Amino acid sequence: MKNNIIHDEWKIIEEGFNPENNRISESIFSIGNGKMGQRANFEEQYSDDSLQGTYIAGIYYPDKTRVGWWKNGYPEYVAKIINSANWIGIDIQIAGETLDLAKTKIEKFRRVLDMKTGVLSRNFVATMPGGQKVEVKSTRFVSIDDSEIGAIRYSVKALNFSGEITVTPYLDGDVKNEDANYDEKFWTEISKEIKAEEGYLTLETLKTRFQVTTGMWFSVLKNTNKVDGKPENAIREKYIGASQKIQVEKGDELTVEKLTATVSSLNHPKKQLVLQAKKAVKRAATAGFDKLFANHKNCWLKKWETSDIKIEGDIAAQQGIRYNIFQLNQTYTGEDERLNIGPKGFTGEKYGGVTYWDTEAYCLPFFMSTAPLEVAKNLLLYRHKHLSKAIENAKKLGFNCQAALYPMVTINGEECHNEWEITFEEIHRNGAIAYAIYNYINNTGDKEYLAPHGFEVLLAISRFWSQRVNWSAEKQKYVMLGVTGPNEYENNINNNFHTSYMAVWTLKYTLEVIDFLKKEFPFLFEELIKKWKFNEISETTVWKEIIENMYFPFDDENQVFLQQDGFKDKKLIPAAELPVKERPINQKWSWDRILRSCYIKQADTLQSIFWFEDDFSDDQIKRHFDFYEPLTVHESSLSPCVHSILAAKIGYEKKSYEMYLRTARLDLDNYNNDTDDGLHITSMGGTWMAFVMGFGGVRVKNNRLVFNPFLPKKWKAYSFRINFRDAHLEVKMERNGFTVVNHSNQKTSIQVWNKQADIEGNKHVKFKNSK
Amino acid sequence: MKNNIIHDEWKIIEEGFNPENNRISESIFSIGNGKMGQRANFEEQYSDDSLQGTYIAGIYYPDKTRVGWWKNGYPEYVAKIINSANWIGIDIQIAGETLDLAKTKIEKFRRVLDMKTGVLSRNFVATMPGGQKVEVKSTRFVSIDDSEIGAIRYSVKALNFSGEITVTPYLDGDVKNEDANYDEKFWTEISKEIKAEEGYLTLETLKTRFQVTTGMWFSVLKNTNKVDGKPENAIREKYIGASQKIQVEKGDELTVEKLTATVSSLNHPKKQLVLQAKKAVKRAATAGFDKLFANHKNCWLKKWETSDIKIEGDIAAQQGIRYNIFQLNQTYTGEDERLNIGPKGFTGEKYGGVTYWDTEAYCLPFFMSTAPLEVAKNLLLYRHKHLSKAIENAKKLGFNCQAALYPMVTINGEECHNEWEITFEEIHRNGAIAYAIYNYINNTGDKEYLAPHGFEVLLAISRFWSQRVNWSAEKQKYVMLGVTGPNEYENNINNNFHTSYMAVWTLKYTLEVIDFLKKEFPFLFEELIKKWKFNEISETTVWKEIIENMYFPFDDENQVFLQQDGFKDKKLIPAAELPVKERPINQKWSWDRILRSCYIKQADTLQSIFWFEDDFSDDQIKRHFDFYEPLTVHESSLSPCVHSILAAKIGYEKKSYEMYLRTARLDLDNYNNDTDDGLHITSMGGTWMAFVMGFGGVRVKNNRLVFNPFLPKKWKAYSFRINFRDAHLEVKMERNGFTVVNHSNQKTSIQVWNKQADIEGNKHVKFKNSK
Repeated sequence: MKNNIIHDEWKIIEEGFNPENNRISESIFSIGNGKMGQRANFEEQYSDDSLQGTYIAGIYYPDKTRVGWWKNGYPEYVAKIINSANWIGIDIQIAGETLDLAKTKIEKFRRVLDMKTGVLSRNFVATMPGGQKVEVKSTRFVSIDDSEIGAIRYSVKALNFSGEITVTPYLDGDVKNEDANYDEKFWTEISKEIKAEEGYLTLETLKTRFQVTTGMWFSVLKNTNKVDGKPENAIREKYIGASQKIQVEKGDELTVEKLTATVSSLNHPKKQLVLQAKKAVKRAATAGFDKLFANHKNCWLKKWETSDIKIEGDIAAQQGIRYNIFQLNQTYTGEDERLNIGPKGFTGEKYGGVTYWDTEAYCLPFFMSTAPLEVAKNLLLYRHKHLSKAIENAKKLGFNCQAALYPMVTINGEECHNEWEITFEEIHRNGAIAYAIYNYINNTGDKEYLAPHGFEVLLAISRFWSQRVNWSAEKQKYVMLGVTGPNEYENNINNNFHTSYMAVWTLKYTLEVIDFLKKEFPFLFEELIKKWKFNEISETTVWKEIIENMYFPFDDENQVFLQQDGFKDKKLIPAAELPVKERPINQKWSWDRILRSCYIKQADTLQSIFWFEDDFSDDQIKRHFDFYEPLTVHESSLSPCVHSILAAKIGYEKKSYEMYLRTARLDLDNYNNDTDDGLHITSMGGTWMAFVMGFGGVRVKNNRLVFNPFLPKKWKAYSFRINFRDAHLEVKMERNGFTVVNHSNQKTSIQVWNKQADIEGNKHVKFKNSK
Repeated sequence: MKNNIIHDEWKIIEEGFNPENNRISESIFSIGNGKMGQRANFEEQYSDDSLQGTYIAGIYYPDKTRVGWWKNGYPEYVAKIINSANWIGIDIQIAGETLDLAKTKIEKFRRVLDMKTGVLSRNFVATMPGGQKVEVKSTRFVSIDDSEIGAIRYSVKALNFSGEITVTPYLDGDVKNEDANYDEKFWTEISKEIKAEEGYLTLETLKTRFQVTTGMWFSVLKNTNKVDGKPENAIREKYIGASQKIQVEKGDELTVEKLTATVSSLNHPKKQLVLQAKKAVKRAATAGFDKLFANHKNCWLKKWETSDIKIEGDIAAQQGIRYNIFQLNQTYTGEDERLNIGPKGFTGEKYGGVTYWDTEAYCLPFFMSTAPLEVAKNLLLYRHKHLSKAIENAKKLGFNCQAALYPMVTINGEECHNEWEITFEEIHRNGAIAYAIYNYINNTGDKEYLAPHGFEVLLAISRFWSQRVNWSAEKQKYVMLGVTGPNEYENNINNNFHTSYMAVWTLKYTLEVIDFLKKEFPFLFEELIKKWKFNEISETTVWKEIIENMYFPFDDENQVFLQQDGFKDKKLIPAAELPVKERPINQKWSWDRILRSCYIKQADTLQSIFWFEDDFSDDQIKRHFDFYEPLTVHESSLSPCVHSILAAKIGYEKKSYEMYLRTARLDLDNYNNDTDDGLHITSMGGTWMAFVMGFGGVRVKNNRLVFNPFLPKKWKAYSFRINFRDAHLEVKMERNGFTVVNHSNQKTSIQVWNKQADIEGNKHVKFKNSK
């Protein structure tokens, strides 16, 4: 454990100020509302190490690509959700000296993130170089009720002196990204204004020309009385602030309330931005901090009502799982199909806030099961909206007939990744996007999504697969050459089992979908045939050919499918035998050594076995797990969840729990020593999956929820919530049994440990633990 | 043909000024002396497109690496031979207006590079915007006799006016590299001084802290009389110049003689640099332009005496082959084992002037056969000097026991390349470096080179190979996983035939060398055993195991070794069937498409068959050539020469000639549309090889020179010179026979078309054409 987070069921608590851990804590205590978010930077000045970060969903800059040697097909730019105007800033001066935690003695430092209500607070006592002691309390939230609003209550109490305190709330747009490829700043100023109690700063991104107006309203109270007095305005390039000097007596407390608005051209006409910001600021100021907070809190309570997981008997585990759920919920709220989930959410710059296949593979299940239908659907629509760009992308790589290759990373549908072995070759992502359509429909029952959205995406992906394979005269089979699987510790390999399996599965599913459309939406299907110039007979004939004749490498000795051609030429030494000082190999070994080793970064063959478990017998699954798990180093945070679920499936409960633990508190305990960069948001979806699908054994089979739960030994009980179509269930697993409560009015049919039952609305059923 | 070079046996001639081709001509007309060199930039101002380039061998800057995503093991920097102070500059003003070829009307422009004497000249008539016509003549050379000296004679004749002409010879160190990764300048100024007739500018490179003093001496003549008058000094940051205003009458001609010195801390103590520059300038000024030129010319004539190739009946071919020889000779003179041959020599920034395996594979044969022994030997010593760095490099990648991996590109022995598929995986380069030792000894007979230099390098490389292979339980053979062969259109492949062949060959050769040392240098060998902690028995036992049990992919159907595992899974479509508009695929296809295609960038399997032709029957060679040649797109300039030689070997004379033509005038005709970047210097060594080993059929077998010549149909005759040990031969191939003249006193034994003969010193032998 590298960070000292105090265990608590609902709160993330840090006590004592530790500057070396500051970046880690800035990540951990991040807050957001799906539309914007920020790292837990300080309101007051801080001159020591810090990563300033305020991010607005959808506001990106196309940073010029940086490569060693250019390869044909690389994108010209890398889109990044960029650091935007800092609106939390409140400078404090005591007798002319700036309060700066790097330059004062700090005591009683305590930082708390209350996950139940989504609020970040911080207290400390600082002794200024001049000896003045102040007690500071700050409370802040990014409203999840009114997503353009942020609110801060910040107080300074004079503990041992009388004198002058200057407070300067400000907005500062002169920010930059640490990961800028060429050290550029991405914002220019459009306008600014500052008046008695409010100020507005409008900035524009270079190139993409997004505009964002940040507004603030502020007031200062001495004890409980509003301080009157004309603030002195401070105006600089991309900066506005308002300073107020206030005389205090020992014991007096000054409180700054700063309510902010962030409005962008993503949602408003540029010309109206300042006006809209003013409206939002007025809305906030009229309501006031307390009312805004009450609304915000209610929203959070509602979210918890459908998504909470409770663990009895293990506070660390309870805190861990809630933290994952909390971060997922504050990263994506699913109201806008133009937005998605960056691997770090709003908590850091790494991976640029852009979309990976992580969304479909690891996050979709959480939102499908805990949020209204539209939330998951919007994640799918995001890809549908990008279909034409995915077709363009495939064309650039030499494909035709409107085949689509979805990008590895993207923000607007264009590819933004530039390592050839990933950009061009990690094409299994196309399969994950197809699978998400199936998964969504299987979970939600929303078959209409296929007509036309789902179908259009599936057709274009199937066209890609059918062109991407080639006939091997040598093998008398179709082969898929030059790919990178989910295990990125193998590059440019041939016949990666997972990729080939996804390809064949996509073709099969698309054929099923065609049958469905022909039956259920015949007129629409006719239109789609024309729109997409779909030659059903000739195209599907080829697909069937491929389905019948695809090559999958197989090992007779172990009776397992091989991850790729030639895998058995490697020395197969269990990862457990690697010296500790050589791990993670990612940091200790050169890339070539990793590549020619047998070590697997993340579930690869096991990924498709997880997704298509019904295609494999339990024995087969066990054989594959036994073969691959010992070789897997799980150096991607997206890996253990899949292993955890499969282990549960084959009865390896201890292994399942061990794998779960590797991600459950990944960031809280800074397990991978990289939380300073930001949180592993998409991995948190995997943790949720490991819990619900692993421990809970939840599946959807034949339009029915199926449970195969077990209770980890260390725990007394756990319970979780789950949506299934129109029903909303709460399940509780205890040592002696499993209870399902139907919190909705909708009767639903379930299966628990092979027993089937119907549950009427608002009733519950109890199952005895048969294990 | 994209450049209009006039055909001439000894001269490269361009007539008419074509600004769009300026960069191409700047490359083509480059001059150098092995220690420094420069592009054919203009002396006078030129404000249109140009790549200013003056390079000093060994003077480099470690530019910070630029990558997309960092991989463990990448080098921190990329060393680059950098653009250094421009010493050719002479500004001309006519009545206050600057002469600038971009801003004046140009007539009678003619540029000539006389390869026989190594001199670049240029004439033109310019009409100034004010109507004044001047005739300009410039002559310039970089002395190959006194390698610190450069000389320019530059004259301006007033054709139609009387008035004022200002001449300003200058030195300008405020230069930059276009390929700087982060747009930095690499030089800082240390000192400068300028006096009546001379000036000195000392600059230092950042980080590497090389110092270079550039000095100039200049005088101005009006017609034949020296102009007296005090020049006005112009001094700026990193710049010194001296302006002289001279009144001329119509018909007067001003001539500036500018003699320069370039001395560096590579060869002199830093404190003495200015002094040394002054000495050199004095040396030059005392001799004067004409005497300097006479010495320079004599040196060139001597070089031609041992390296010229004559072709009768084809002026374009004659010009082409001489151009290749000329450029090789002005890039490397072999007096300093710290220097080497950059792929672009001194003619451009691309590839940073650093060393690749090109040197060993394509350049060494030329120098071995046409220059004194030391020249080739210094190329080998360069690698020996870098042995400890190569060991460090391998250690960084996880190898031990002083195994060595020579870098892909280097200047001081450290790796400077950062594409993982090449940096870490294109390890056949290690084999090329081992082969060069064998090749050198086979050609020169200098077996003593093995004790200890050759042996030390071979031992360390053998240790690398023995660790780089692994035992495949599956194949019951040793395999070599994760490599990139010379064909860089395949990355991270398994069991590349060429790499594995080089590995096994190195092990075998090292065993031979050990036997030789034990017999001939037993005491030294004992010392080497200790120095290198060489456990002969255990290490060589492993080597023999590998030699016996190495796996080489083989195709039963075609009875050929396969370039790599799985090659036959590809669609094998002859390159001839590729649409013209899709070529070069390198520019037209995305990288993944190239990778999964069957197309071969450069000789790969054929490279080892070329090097080890005695290991293969003629039938085998034919089968391999017939299999691979149709799939080879020759998109590396290093490819056709190997095919040309093999084609000649198996009697495909037409193919051999066709392949030869692809490189013979590569730059003169800007065949690949990239001569603007600089010349393909190392490929020129390949062209020489194609001529001598292909057309001439030259080999060294059993300590004897063997010839199997043929005469391309288009030609009447050709002749070339070749050193062999102490003999120096001139051979001439005519339609009816082949004549060998021994120009040395040393009797030597040769074989021509299977007939053996001894040739006494200074005698000749004629062989009838048996074909």
